[in-house]
Amino acid sequence: MTKRLLQALAGEAVWPPPIWLMRQAGRYLPEYRAVRAGVRDFVALCTTPALAAEVTLQPLRRFGMDAAILFSDILILPWALGRALDFVEGEGPRLPPLTTAAEVDALDPARLPAALAPVLETIERVRAGVGAAALIGFAGAPFTVACYMVEGQGSRDFAAARLMAWREPALFGRLMATLTEATIASLDAQIAAGAEAVMLFDSWAGLLPPGEFRRHVIAPAARIVAALRARHPAVPVIGFPRLAGLLLGEYAAGSRVQGLGLDTAAEPALAARLVAAEVALQGNLDPLALLAGGAALAAETAAILAAMRGRPFVFNLGHGILPATPPDHVAALVAQVRGA
Amino acid sequence: MTKRLLQALAGEAVWPPPIWLMRQAGRYLPEYRAVRAGVRDFVALCTTPALAAEVTLQPLRRFGMDAAILFSDILILPWALGRALDFVEGEGPRLPPLTTAAEVDALDPARLPAALAPVLETIERVRAGVGAAALIGFAGAPFTVACYMVEGQGSRDFAAARLMAWREPALFGRLMATLTEATIASLDAQIAAGAEAVMLFDSWAGLLPPGEFRRHVIAPAARIVAALRARHPAVPVIGFPRLAGLLLGEYAAGSRVQGLGLDTAAEPALAARLVAAEVALQGNLDPLALLAGGAALAAETAAILAAMRGRPFVFNLGHGILPATPPDHVAALVAQVRGA
Repeated sequence: MTKRLLQALAGEAVWPPPIWLMRQAGRYLPEYRAVRAGVRDFVALCTTPALAAEVTLQPLRRFGMDAAILFSDILILPWALGRALDFVEGEGPRLPPLTTAAEVDALDPARLPAALAPVLETIERVRAGVGAAALIGFAGAPFTVACYMVEGQGSRDFAAARLMAWREPALFGRLMATLTEATIASLDAQIAAGAEAVMLFDSWAGLLPPGEFRRHVIAPAARIVAALRARHPAVPVIGFPRLAGLLLGEYAAGSRVQGLGLDTAAEPALAARLVAAEVALQGNLDPLALLAGGAALAAETAAILAAMRGRPFVFNLGHGILPATPPDHVAALVAQVRGA
Repeated sequence: MTKRLLQALAGEAVWPPPIWLMRQAGRYLPEYRAVRAGVRDFVALCTTPALAAEVTLQPLRRFGMDAAILFSDILILPWALGRALDFVEGEGPRLPPLTTAAEVDALDPARLPAALAPVLETIERVRAGVGAAALIGFAGAPFTVACYMVEGQGSRDFAAARLMAWREPALFGRLMATLTEATIASLDAQIAAGAEAVMLFDSWAGLLPPGEFRRHVIAPAARIVAALRARHPAVPVIGFPRLAGLLLGEYAAGSRVQGLGLDTAAEPALAARLVAAEVALQGNLDPLALLAGGAALAAETAAILAAMRGRPFVFNLGHGILPATPPDHVAALVAQVRGA
């Protein structure tokens, strides 16, 4: 029997739709906090297969989600390529800002197999325990990963990375090319280890003006999708170009993703009109509506379901679940979607 | 002779297009920093007419811009309604977070005439010195102003304000209604004092899911535009719903603005197709391309000009000018646009 998530990603209008939530394994769950309390740091959690597999499976046990998504971080890739990585409690990731050609040249794809081995072992363990749910592997899209690498941390506008793109387009282009190939290698290995679908997170795509969006978001996504499809024709790719805005349709057509993640701001009915009918849409409940719960949550959920009925669709949030979200609200959401 | 900016906003395809830049009076100019160094704080600068008028006119003297925009701040309105306001050097605005019904009820529109008097005097002074340039008044749109009032400061997601909208919709609705009427009063008074066009800045509109965008962005803009048009039929309103994305066309049609500001991410040619031909588009050069200068600046500028030729258009940035921008880059930009 085909798994419901994979049916939707294959273009079937499965109803009620499958559901999972971005960052569903995370701090809002007491069982996650219990595991997290016992490890030194966040990178250690991502690279200890027994623990990473455990937290990946927690939301499935509690809520019966239709998918597990590998517990990891988009910055594990630059770490695997040789960059230092730290997560500062309450402040997010810190990397040494990458600024020179020598640093770009020093990124070492030969390190990937060994560095990613624990991630692949996590996938094998999760796959063995995932049951009827599908296992999603993932990577940050090259532009978003480059943003963090050049900036060295989170930012409202990632000005350092975007200035490098304007001032040193050849250097930024080499960084992007290296990341694109490393992303293909990582996702290819994740699929070989057992991932049944993969998702490409471009959280900061919406910062870019249109020409740069085409160059640094659509083109790398197209390259990644084509390379994966050649090797794994049956494994779908979900693209998530957050805040793509008016360029959402162009991203879907240009990248040839089988699934398209909608951010919170995307109007589902308009998105449905802009995107080919066989592409599964995924999204896009406001994480703050989930946190708030009650009437707002029920009404927003109903509106999304009504707009998406009749087309291949995966219920999800429009951005990651917030740490303050009460787990009861997630249970109520899942019940409502299952009852659709 | 009609001023070039007003011709464009009246629906004429003036070419080369008029140009001005969001935050054109500001820290990137040494003559601004000289004035700023002599005043106690930012609110004092906004409410001292001789100084506010001086900095408003500085970019016109240096670059010959087609418009002056009143030097003020969107948070002067809540300050005028009775909320405390401070600008912390390098950190941005601070207000006491508004959280209760009593605080919403205490907002006092009767304070506006006296509190806004210095702003209106600034407008009178600028108008006297503005020459062939047009004078633009402005306000923050109610949603964006409410974001700062409830949050108490800038934020990446304005979760406090957005949670109030979900959890206490009646209370948030009353805040929005009070701000909408106060915005009308402020813009009406600015026009009476000499503003020849007004702009409504909804910097955080793009945070909202579609239903909330219609309720808190489009509906208040429509109310403000209708009220101003009834009193000042010849004065155009420019709306700037930043990151409106797929809802840009719906905003333009629903609000009935005469000018529509495009953010950096908006594809000019797509925006032009979504918006009625008589609405002037304004934007949308990446402020980081202006900061970078050189080939990137020239190419991005040329692309925008090519996309907008033949329709009513006002050249501008897609977001405010950045403090680190070299004034020479602004001069080069103006020369390129004038030579179009």
